Order: sequence, then C-alpha cells, then structure tokens
Amino acid sequence: MPAYVHGGDVYTYASRYGGAPLDLSANINPFGTPEGVRQAMQDALSRCACYPDPFCRAARRAISAAEGVPADWLYCGNGAADVLDRLAAALRPRTALLTVPTFAAYERTLAGAQLRFHPLRVEEEFTLTGRLLDDIVPGLDAVYLCNPNNPTGRTADPALLRAVARRCAANGTWLVVDECFSDFLTDSAQHTLKDLLGAQPRLVLLRAYTKMYAVPGVRFGWCMTANAALVDALYRAGQPWNVSVIAQACAEAAAREQDYAQRTAARIADERAYLAEELQRRGLNVYKSEVNFLLFRAAEQDLQQQLAARGVLLRSMLHDRGLGAGWYRTAVKTRQDSRTLLAALDEIRREER
Amino acid sequence: MPAYVHGGDVYTYASRYGGAPLDLSANINPFGTPEGVRQAMQDALSRCACYPDPFCRAARRAISAAEGVPADWLYCGNGAADVLDRLAAALRPRTALLTVPTFAAYERTLAGAQLRFHPLRVEEEFTLTGRLLDDIVPGLDAVYLCNPNNPTGRTADPALLRAVARRCAANGTWLVVDECFSDFLTDSAQHTLKDLLGAQPRLVLLRAYTKMYAVPGVRFGWCMTANAALVDALYRAGQPWNVSVIAQACAEAAAREQDYAQRTAARIADERAYLAEELQRRGLNVYKSEVNFLLFRAAEQDLQQQLAARGVLLRSMLHDRGLGAGWYRTAVKTRQDSRTLLAALDEIRREER
Repeated sequence: MPAYVHGGDVYTYASRYGGAPLDLSANINPFGTPEGVRQAMQDALSRCACYPDPFCRAARRAISAAEGVPADWLYCGNGAADVLDRLAAALRPRTALLTVPTFAAYERTLAGAQLRFHPLRVEEEFTLTGRLLDDIVPGLDAVYLCNPNNPTGRTADPALLRAVARRCAANGTWLVVDECFSDFLTDSAQHTLKDLLGAQPRLVLLRAYTKMYAVPGVRFGWCMTANAALVDALYRAGQPWNVSVIAQACAEAAAREQDYAQRTAARIADERAYLAEELQRRGLNVYKSEVNFLLFRAAEQDLQQQLAARGVLLRSMLHDRGLGAGWYRTAVKTRQDSRTLLAALDEIRREER
Repeated sequence: MPAYVHGGDVYTYASRYGGAPLDLSANINPFGTPEGVRQAMQDALSRCACYPDPFCRAARRAISAAEGVPADWLYCGNGAADVLDRLAAALRPRTALLTVPTFAAYERTLAGAQLRFHPLRVEEEFTLTGRLLDDIVPGLDAVYLCNPNNPTGRTADPALLRAVARRCAANGTWLVVDECFSDFLTDSAQHTLKDLLGAQPRLVLLRAYTKMYAVPGVRFGWCMTANAALVDALYRAGQPWNVSVIAQACAEAAAREQDYAQRTAARIADERAYLAEELQRRGLNVYKSEVNFLLFRAAEQDLQQQLAARGVLLRSMLHDRGLGAGWYRTAVKTRQDSRTLLAALDEIRREER
C-alpha cells in the first residue's frame, strides 16, 4: 500500500489517536453544506438503483447556466482528481511545464511526460512573473498552472496570465489552468480565463464544487474546454459511470448556490486576515494568500506531529517539490478553529522553553 | 460525446419518451436495497465534509470478515469498472485472451493489448469447454474470464475453471475472473476461485456489491488478489480518493447482509424459470442462465426500439462481438416486471400480424 502524504487523512488520525481531529490539513469550507445541496443528495439516495447518467446531463445543464458556458464544453468527473487523470490520458503530453511549488497531483498524473519545472521564488513570495513566458517554448506540449496556486494561495496577475495563454496558443501548447480554489477568491471574475475558451481550443479550465460546498467525500469535479475532440477523449479515457448519482445531484444543486460561494469568500477573507496576523505575531513566516489556506514556515520541523498529538491536523509540505522541512499549510476555517490552532501552538512553544 | 451502448440508460429514455421505463437493460436486484445498507448511506451523508479514506479501511475490514479473505488482499474502486480500468493500467498485458461473447468492458480497458478471442459456440449454448486450455499458450500475458458470464448467465464447469487456473499459473499468465454476478448464483461457493488466491499470485477475482444491493448509482466494486505488488499498483493507477464516503459506507453495510444475497438468489431462480419458459413459449430462443438475466434471440431486429416505445428497456446485443442483430438480454426481475415485458411482447406480436 503506498504512503499517503495528502491532507485530510482523518482516518489514520482516528486509528492512531482516536476521535476526530480539527482538520486544517484539507481546505474545506468550514461553514458546511448549504441546505439545498444537502437535500439534493438526500433525495438522490432513492435514485441510486439506476446507474448514473454517463453524460451528467442535468448537472452539466445547471453548471452551464451558472457559468455561462455551453453545456457541451463541460466534462464532469469523480472529483477534480479524476478529471486530471483523464486529462493526462487524453492529452498524453510528451513534455509538460509545472511551477514549483504547486499541487502535487499534476506531477503524479503526468508520470509519462518529460517534466520541466519553473521555480517560483521564495524571495518573491512565490509570485508568478514574466519569466514564465521564457519557459513556454516551441515543442512544449502542455503547461499546468494552478490559479490561485495551491499551496501558496496566490493568483497570477491577470494580464500576465493572459500573456501566458497567448504564448501557449502561439506555440500550440495545451494550457490547463486549475481554478479549483477560485470560488474562494473575493474577485474570482477577474481571474478566470473562461472568456478565452471559445477562441483557444487548447485551453482547459479545471473546477470543483466539493471544497466550497464542503462535500469532498462525495467526489465531483469538472473541466471546461471548447475542444469537442478533447471532451470526447475525456469520456473515452475511462469507465462511463465515474460520477455517482449522488455526486451529480450535488453538483446540480451546488450550481444554483453561487451566492453561498460569494458569502463564504467574504467571511474567509476576514478569518484569513485574523489567522495570518496571529501566526505572524508568533514568529511564523506566513505567505500572502487570497483563498482559504495559508502557507507558512516554522522553526519547528515536527510541528505537524506536535499539533496532531494535540488534536489539530496540519498539512506538512515536507514531500512537496520546492518546499520541504519546516513548511506547512493550514486551512482557514472559523474563528474558533483558528483559536484552537493558536492555543495548541502556544502550548507547544511553552513546552519548548 | 461518444455513443453509449450499455444498459441502464434511463436518462436518454426520459428525454426521449418522458417518465421512467421498466428497466430490464441493467441487471439490478429488483427487491431493492436492504434497510441496513440504505441507513448506512443515509448516515454517511453527514460525513461527506471529509475526503474519503483512500484505503477504504472500514469497508475492507467488513468484506474481509464476510469473504474470509485477508483485508490486505482487497482493493476497492469506484465500481467494478474502475477496478477494471486500474487492472489494465497495472497489468499492462501485451497479449490478452477474451471469450466471445463476454462483457464488453474488458475489451475497452485492454485497448493497449493485442487481443485474442476464444469463441464460445452458439450450438454449445456458449458453454466454456476444454478448448479454452489450448488457447492458453506460453507468452500469453492475461486471460479475462467472466464467471458467471455476462451476457449468457452461464458458469464454467468448476473442474474446467481450475484446470484453466493451473494452465495460467504454469504459463505465468495473469488470470482475471470477473465474479461480479456470482452473488446471484444459488451455488456460488462451488464457483468462486477464492481458495486458490493464496497459492496463485497472478490470480485476480473481481466483485461488486452494487448489483445485488441495488445501488449501481453509488459505485462500489472491488477485487481480491494475494499479490501485494499488484494491490500497490492498483492504488497508484489513479487518484487516491476514487471511492466516495457514501460508497464505502454502503459496502461496509452490504458485507454484513450476506443472507440478503442468498434469499435474493433463490427468489431470482424462481423468476428466471418463469420468464424463460414464457419467452420460449412465445417462440424466442432463450439460452440457459444461472443468474439474474437471460440472453435470447428473436426474429425481430428492432425489438429494443419497439419495447422502448412501450416503456420497457431491453439490452440490445447488436454491438457485442459474437452476437449482433436479433440478440437481446433481459434482466430477471419481479413476476410483475416479467408480466409487463410479456404483455408488451404480445402487443408487438399482435401488431405485427
């Protein structure tokens, strides 16, 4: 069985410590699931005696209406992770460019490609700069960008991102932009590349509802592309019934709750400011974020274990390319959750003295 | 969007005819979901704010207890179809042998292999014979067998199946036996190869709970193998969170309802005898089945469309290798369902005159 280094592993925690931790290792909306989404999943239980719709028709119609993108441009999967697996199988890039640091799943799914890495500099707070353009060279098959980036929580400058898209188009390079955390931005409309889809058939935007609507256990993610051949290839890249009846009902309902996302983003912005300041005040090096998680550096190399022993799960970035020991990511949740984390930190610091 | 030729497409039906058909195109237990399983899924809804356990620990423990097989030998997927996708990615056979006819998904997942086909003969009622042994030659990487076979509903003779397993072991050939419909046999213990797993590291048995427990919309399938390297490769063959929280809870509960499977198999045997006799009486050529579906041949080449127009979904085998126009498969459901099918058939026949 392979080692598991992602966040959200409350199951190993339960077997080791017993009970449920405060899970700050996965970036899930702390305000829970809206009643409309919860009820839709509840109702869907009674329809599970049928196979799921392999084409997710009702969910795609609802997303299409919410996003203003044709339903035929949407492909739905068993979580964004399934869409990433299928994208890698469908695109089969020989060469692909990734930023460092970024979400580790791209590298896993692109195991068959020759990978090139564009380092984001710690002294620039991991900001994407115009240097990226120099790395988008003829012959490069694909660029994967996470915007806002995970684990930094930073967006790319919109003008730069559009320059990247133009450079990719000029070179015939696929551009996959993972917008899975864009719902948590207070200015998401400024950052999405949705309006470029129609003109750029090698552009793919990845999205998820499960973080914002607090249902990662249900599994639903999707992508948008105007490329009909790619959509067809995504369907063919695996089984036809990958998205459960419950996940489809969940997505259909979530698409109708866009105001919930906006309210959440505003609340999270307040909580992020509070938590970042309090962590800084305790001498931790916190990086600027625009979404519901914070990347930080600590003197302690065993902070994850120490916090776990106190019932708080943090994400260690030990195994993440470009980061390493002493780097951590915490979700931004409620004020009470932040206070629990800070109290545990204070306790650890008192014992260290 | 690719054409969809599988059963269970009630969604296209709804958009074409409106309403819900009697679905005999998917082979789902007509007696529904046991209360314990339904309640477990209901309870799981409230745990969906966490990612699923990537190792399906609780579900594997329950299946292990029910099947008498170590939990480490079990790999769980997002339906048996996901397990088949991952098996193909993990085994990567250069050559593979399939019977004809059989379940079409093997051929889809093995698109990268050179396929060899072993024809089952219509004049032998598609019975597996000793001729199969001659096709298991040195250099053959994998054999996929469906037992009981889909779409015929026939089991292989147990002694012959064990001879096949020995021949595979002697040649270093992977043997994948799909036992997904074995729960519907009244004598399933005679047919499973579970007892060979420990001695044969290139043996894999595929199973599903979703047909017997009437929850195909939930997606849960699994396989058993004593091969630790293969189990590891299955985990690595795709995303770690492929099985939803709800599907894991469903499987955990279903494993504790083995008596439900036995009662269902006995009831289905009665219904199968009734339906087979009534179809024969109407001049259809019905093949012997041991499970919850019947393969038959009709003079009508448009029977699927004619029945659909009358609210009954049948599975056409038009696109299935070794079958073709005029071949159909119907699920065996309740007496009332059979009567509905027969009445629709009688109506079509009256109009034909």
